[in-house]
Amino acid sequence: MPQLHARTALSAESIFSQMSRLAVQHGAINLGQGFPSSPPPAFLLGAARSAVGSVDQYSAPLGLLNLREAVAHDLNVQPQQVVITCGATEAMFALAQTLYGPGDEVIALEPVFDIYAPQAQMVGASYVGVPMSLDSSGWQLDLDALRRAVTPRTRALIVNSPFNPTGSVFSEAELQQLVDLARQHDFWLISDEVYDELYYGAAPVSLRTLAPERTFTVGSAGKRLEATGWRVGWILTPPGLAPEVAGLHQWTTFCAPAPLQSAVASALLEARQSGFYTELRASYRARMERLALGLTRLGAEVFTPQGTYFLTARLPGVSAERLVVEGGVAVIPLAAFYKQCPAPADMLRLAFCKSEAEIMEALERLERFLGR
Amino acid sequence: MPQLHARTALSAESIFSQMSRLAVQHGAINLGQGFPSSPPPAFLLGAARSAVGSVDQYSAPLGLLNLREAVAHDLNVQPQQVVITCGATEAMFALAQTLYGPGDEVIALEPVFDIYAPQAQMVGASYVGVPMSLDSSGWQLDLDALRRAVTPRTRALIVNSPFNPTGSVFSEAELQQLVDLARQHDFWLISDEVYDELYYGAAPVSLRTLAPERTFTVGSAGKRLEATGWRVGWILTPPGLAPEVAGLHQWTTFCAPAPLQSAVASALLEARQSGFYTELRASYRARMERLALGLTRLGAEVFTPQGTYFLTARLPGVSAERLVVEGGVAVIPLAAFYKQCPAPADMLRLAFCKSEAEIMEALERLERFLGR
Repeated sequence: MPQLHARTALSAESIFSQMSRLAVQHGAINLGQGFPSSPPPAFLLGAARSAVGSVDQYSAPLGLLNLREAVAHDLNVQPQQVVITCGATEAMFALAQTLYGPGDEVIALEPVFDIYAPQAQMVGASYVGVPMSLDSSGWQLDLDALRRAVTPRTRALIVNSPFNPTGSVFSEAELQQLVDLARQHDFWLISDEVYDELYYGAAPVSLRTLAPERTFTVGSAGKRLEATGWRVGWILTPPGLAPEVAGLHQWTTFCAPAPLQSAVASALLEARQSGFYTELRASYRARMERLALGLTRLGAEVFTPQGTYFLTARLPGVSAERLVVEGGVAVIPLAAFYKQCPAPADMLRLAFCKSEAEIMEALERLERFLGR
Repeated sequence: MPQLHARTALSAESIFSQMSRLAVQHGAINLGQGFPSSPPPAFLLGAARSAVGSVDQYSAPLGLLNLREAVAHDLNVQPQQVVITCGATEAMFALAQTLYGPGDEVIALEPVFDIYAPQAQMVGASYVGVPMSLDSSGWQLDLDALRRAVTPRTRALIVNSPFNPTGSVFSEAELQQLVDLARQHDFWLISDEVYDELYYGAAPVSLRTLAPERTFTVGSAGKRLEATGWRVGWILTPPGLAPEVAGLHQWTTFCAPAPLQSAVASALLEARQSGFYTELRASYRARMERLALGLTRLGAEVFTPQGTYFLTARLPGVSAERLVVEGGVAVIPLAAFYKQCPAPADMLRLAFCKSEAEIMEALERLERFLGR
């Protein structure tokens, strides 16, 4: 047989898939992979049931016009700046295709969401990881480390705020420092904002408002509307660049699922008007506080998140691999988010986008596991 | 601003999107882009309405197990060989990622479906076009031309049968010649079989039955079930290779739309048991014959298709660009399917996956356009 391409070295099963598989296998509570255990809101489901049978054929690669308009309205950009993709994963991949290739370097902050490095490598670019610093006051941007990582080959910086897995939200001052650096060295900014509606303090500032000329923003209907399997995401481009991005996206997937695009178009307005996001935040905050309190009682050092549905905690002596098999709780070892930088010891990422009953049961199981 | 990557040279709007846009703009009957004007079958829609609200979160990158089992059962392979993708477009792209890169050559037959060349180029490989021959008896494989195109750098041959845009179906003898060549020169075979249920003579032979060790087969729920916008496709891999393909697909889109995967899983069985494909073929055959007869009466030389929902016809003096604007009928100039080889003169591709009323109206408009 001929060989497969060397790119298949990137084919390993992700830690999320691996932990979800082990969770099913061992009947574990899954605080690993970040998907909600509650169903999407009724207004989204109703819209989808109406859309199938009427919006079933290809959309344009740019996406359905009414969805582009709904996203633009919600995020205060022009519809011409919006490209609809098969989830935020494809949005990030389309930007990798559009912005870099062999010889280019792409910087992201570690602990890093697991798709950024392999996506850069799939298009031939080099991934450069820069560590966040962590002390008892929490996760901090290390601007000096970032400055040292910039070279003449730097083509883009990927920023994730609210930040999976740290739960941090960058302040406007921190974002302005990133913008200054990008302008000084003339690189692109890719702002992964899929958790833009999941925050527990002040609303996050969007990077594009500080650097509209060079920021690509990525968003996700799946994260906002509790439907991670629907594969409807979006990119907001600097003015004039949407056709360039959509022109590569058309060769990857052609278009996002049309009936689900149609459903999201009407649901985005409904979600905003009905206060859905406000309720969602309140519900997640309650579950986050419950989990944080329980973990603290078990002796963990908890780093309270400012956003996302994840928290990080230090829990010495707990191996995630043993915990899922022997303790019946799936979590993600934070070391899995470190590609180039040394990982802090004994850290875990726990998802709280699960029911309160699951969170309580997970805490009880964890207590039994620790007591053995 | 920094530059975009040179890859964006591939970003041009496709001829299909362009013609569909012009069709809307000029109120034209759209016999250009290949999407059905009838809705998907009720059993598919019902399954989707049940799936939303119960199958809404990520599937594994390989796809929902019940869909992999349904595809495997329908196509007589093992579920372990099946990878579910965001439509057949992403299936073809995942294979490009898996099989080739810079320095490799990929052969396809011209007139060529428009995604093969840019997908090869996006992963850094070279596209090599080999012409089909065309005479009064129709489209024929030119095996000598194909042999001359093979080099030590040839990594894969893409075969499309039933063949868009020619409408040809390769015989078992022709496929065996392709297999012999692939074995002699040790390259992969990629068999795009999205029109596997749309044939008007004997059922097509699948290339994988002749070379299971080196053939990747691509299929499409959208084509089979009249739902091109649903983005559920699949790859059947040689034994053992599905995880390698899914491992790259996970970085492109992560997974296909979960509720639509679930709906397709139950619909595939229903479609087979209820005789849906037999009825679909009969319905398309009637429309194809209607269009062919009408075109022949207008003086066209029609090449009757053996499969797909397209036919090719020679109609001297008709410019597709003028026809959509002045005549109110959108078709695709066959020259758009030629990337490297000289196109035969005056040829058009017409889609007959439209209602009989639309086809009759298109013929009347064409007659008026020709009479002017």
